[in-house]
Amino acid sequence: MIVKNKKDGAFSIEYADGDARAGILETSHGQLKTPFFMPVATQGSVKSIDPGDLEMIGSKIILGNAYHLYLRPGADVVSKLGGLHEFMSWDGPILTDSGGYQGFSLRSLRKIDENGITFRSHIDGSTHFLSPEKIIEVQGKLGSDIMMPLDVCSSLHEEEETVRLGIKRTAEWLQRSLDYKENSDQMLFGIIQGGISKELRKESSEITTSFDMPGYSIGGLSVGEPKAKLYEIAGFTSRLLPKRKPRYLMGVGSPEDLVECVGRGIDMFDCVLPTRVARNGALYTRDGRVNIKSARYREVDDTFDIECDCYSCTKFSTGYLHHLYRAREYLAYRLGSIHNLRFMTRIMNEMRQSIMARSFDEYRTEFLARYSITDESARMDQRKK
Amino acid sequence: MIVKNKKDGAFSIEYADGDARAGILETSHGQLKTPFFMPVATQGSVKSIDPGDLEMIGSKIILGNAYHLYLRPGADVVSKLGGLHEFMSWDGPILTDSGGYQGFSLRSLRKIDENGITFRSHIDGSTHFLSPEKIIEVQGKLGSDIMMPLDVCSSLHEEEETVRLGIKRTAEWLQRSLDYKENSDQMLFGIIQGGISKELRKESSEITTSFDMPGYSIGGLSVGEPKAKLYEIAGFTSRLLPKRKPRYLMGVGSPEDLVECVGRGIDMFDCVLPTRVARNGALYTRDGRVNIKSARYREVDDTFDIECDCYSCTKFSTGYLHHLYRAREYLAYRLGSIHNLRFMTRIMNEMRQSIMARSFDEYRTEFLARYSITDESARMDQRKK
Repeated sequence: MIVKNKKDGAFSIEYADGDARAGILETSHGQLKTPFFMPVATQGSVKSIDPGDLEMIGSKIILGNAYHLYLRPGADVVSKLGGLHEFMSWDGPILTDSGGYQGFSLRSLRKIDENGITFRSHIDGSTHFLSPEKIIEVQGKLGSDIMMPLDVCSSLHEEEETVRLGIKRTAEWLQRSLDYKENSDQMLFGIIQGGISKELRKESSEITTSFDMPGYSIGGLSVGEPKAKLYEIAGFTSRLLPKRKPRYLMGVGSPEDLVECVGRGIDMFDCVLPTRVARNGALYTRDGRVNIKSARYREVDDTFDIECDCYSCTKFSTGYLHHLYRAREYLAYRLGSIHNLRFMTRIMNEMRQSIMARSFDEYRTEFLARYSITDESARMDQRKK
Repeated sequence: MIVKNKKDGAFSIEYADGDARAGILETSHGQLKTPFFMPVATQGSVKSIDPGDLEMIGSKIILGNAYHLYLRPGADVVSKLGGLHEFMSWDGPILTDSGGYQGFSLRSLRKIDENGITFRSHIDGSTHFLSPEKIIEVQGKLGSDIMMPLDVCSSLHEEEETVRLGIKRTAEWLQRSLDYKENSDQMLFGIIQGGISKELRKESSEITTSFDMPGYSIGGLSVGEPKAKLYEIAGFTSRLLPKRKPRYLMGVGSPEDLVECVGRGIDMFDCVLPTRVARNGALYTRDGRVNIKSARYREVDDTFDIECDCYSCTKFSTGYLHHLYRAREYLAYRLGSIHNLRFMTRIMNEMRQSIMARSFDEYRTEFLARYSITDESARMDQRKK
């Protein structure tokens, strides 16, 4: 079951268990085992984390953002400094997002028309026009292994016709991206939009898969819809996509989201949550997310999470981690981020193992039975963007 | 020339070159080569740096602050969590400052009388009375290798009689500290005060050295006096102290201060400057301090400092470091701090070598001829406290 495409890398599914899949994705910077989670290095650095930390964490691929890097330091600067891999001192694969999501999230700062997105820079207010071609050019200079085309991401409150126009533009921009793309070392995925409407997701999937891309992204989810709806639409869309291509659910998510969505056939994830909530003191455990700043941890001499093998848990006591957060020491943010990213890596590895052992359902059931989702953690998830 | 004192550790001078000395200081957590520089871990963490970083940097001893740790997390909490070494996961020696300096710098928050210092906490405004005995008790619980007694640090604008009263109190408090001290694994130093008056420094040195302590600190300098005065008083006081005891110049300083003061017989230094200025983007080089945020570094693909062997210089390009600072990434603060602390460690090691080779004067002359001290860097030094 190997789809070999010399031009665009290759994806092979080694095991499947229900809708869940364990595969191998070939990139210009090495082989990746799916499913995987990508830490987010928006501006060319996973916040408070360095390449050595990523190695300890076991991350094999990271995500950068073309829009942010275009604005600062500029794609030409990154290119002069050897491309994004050399710039960051990261030898592994990199996926770059296009900036389509920023066209959604920085709503007050943009205008979209058929030619592209006009942004006002969040850094200095300067105006920038980003076309599908420009975004491919930027990602070419960055030299990422997997590129995203410019897309139109709709909000939950959009009229059906507006969402449909977004789907149409996203497809037209994909065509323009393909026409413009030159570098054969870089994979380009197609992006499915369509909000929370199954009908529109179906339309977007049909038009996008007609391009026969090396992989497909599901965008426009985790933008405020209920979790049940996120899972339903992710699962529905996933099943519309070709089995033999990798499926990337953009911007998702929390640990429970990963478990739910691997079960629905998703292979790739990215999210700022693990590092962002870590900076607020929210650390993942098998029992759910806990607030390390809580007074109950002040005198705890034990390891924070005895089930965790990360640097923070094996080197320091719970009481020390608590103190670093209370004292607002920079080290807190790094140690918390290492822990949460290691947690994500570990559950992805475990899911892969369970798929290979044909026991994914048991894994999912056990994980979700134990992992408690509190109102507080759900609220923090909503604030993530 | 070994002064062995089982109770209080031991100091031996291996080489001397003019007033400069190269020695060995024995502590409960191992042997230290002098002269040395101590990174500052005020609240139990060298800002943005972890124990693994300190090992890479080559730091052998760090400094904690009894006053800060007493307030948060509390000496009893640190003690329950195994003492300061285990709390921080740091196996090397630790020196703790007493809080006397905070009695000076947090002027609006304190009242001093003959019994001790009454502070209002800078964290929650609560009132705390710290006596000489209490400060020894706190440092006993922290378990530092070298303790400082509570002292009275005078400002430059004090009347002579006020400074003299401070000297008298500092000596009385040293006696009370000695009477109270029980733990024989912990060295207690005596502190010389006296502002910028040679007469008062002489009085303070005479009364303090009469206690025959295992080491002596020179406090109350680098508080706003001109650099020439700092060097003059440090040198004058240093020569009043017993040759066979280690001499610690508290809170000093910049790279040029270290070179100047090793030449005046100082063995030990600590300062927040290397990490603080690093967080502002000021990085040390042989040619002086430079601002990595300057636009001229934007596209520089080379190593920031080709003479430096630190992690930041060997792993990343100048342009990437510049970008991290411009983008306000947390990683910038860590990489800059690693560089500056490594710079301090390297010049201390070089000074030791030059003393052993009887070429310290050449080293000093060469270092100072090349190291440019700009008005900007002098202003930043002044803001350090």
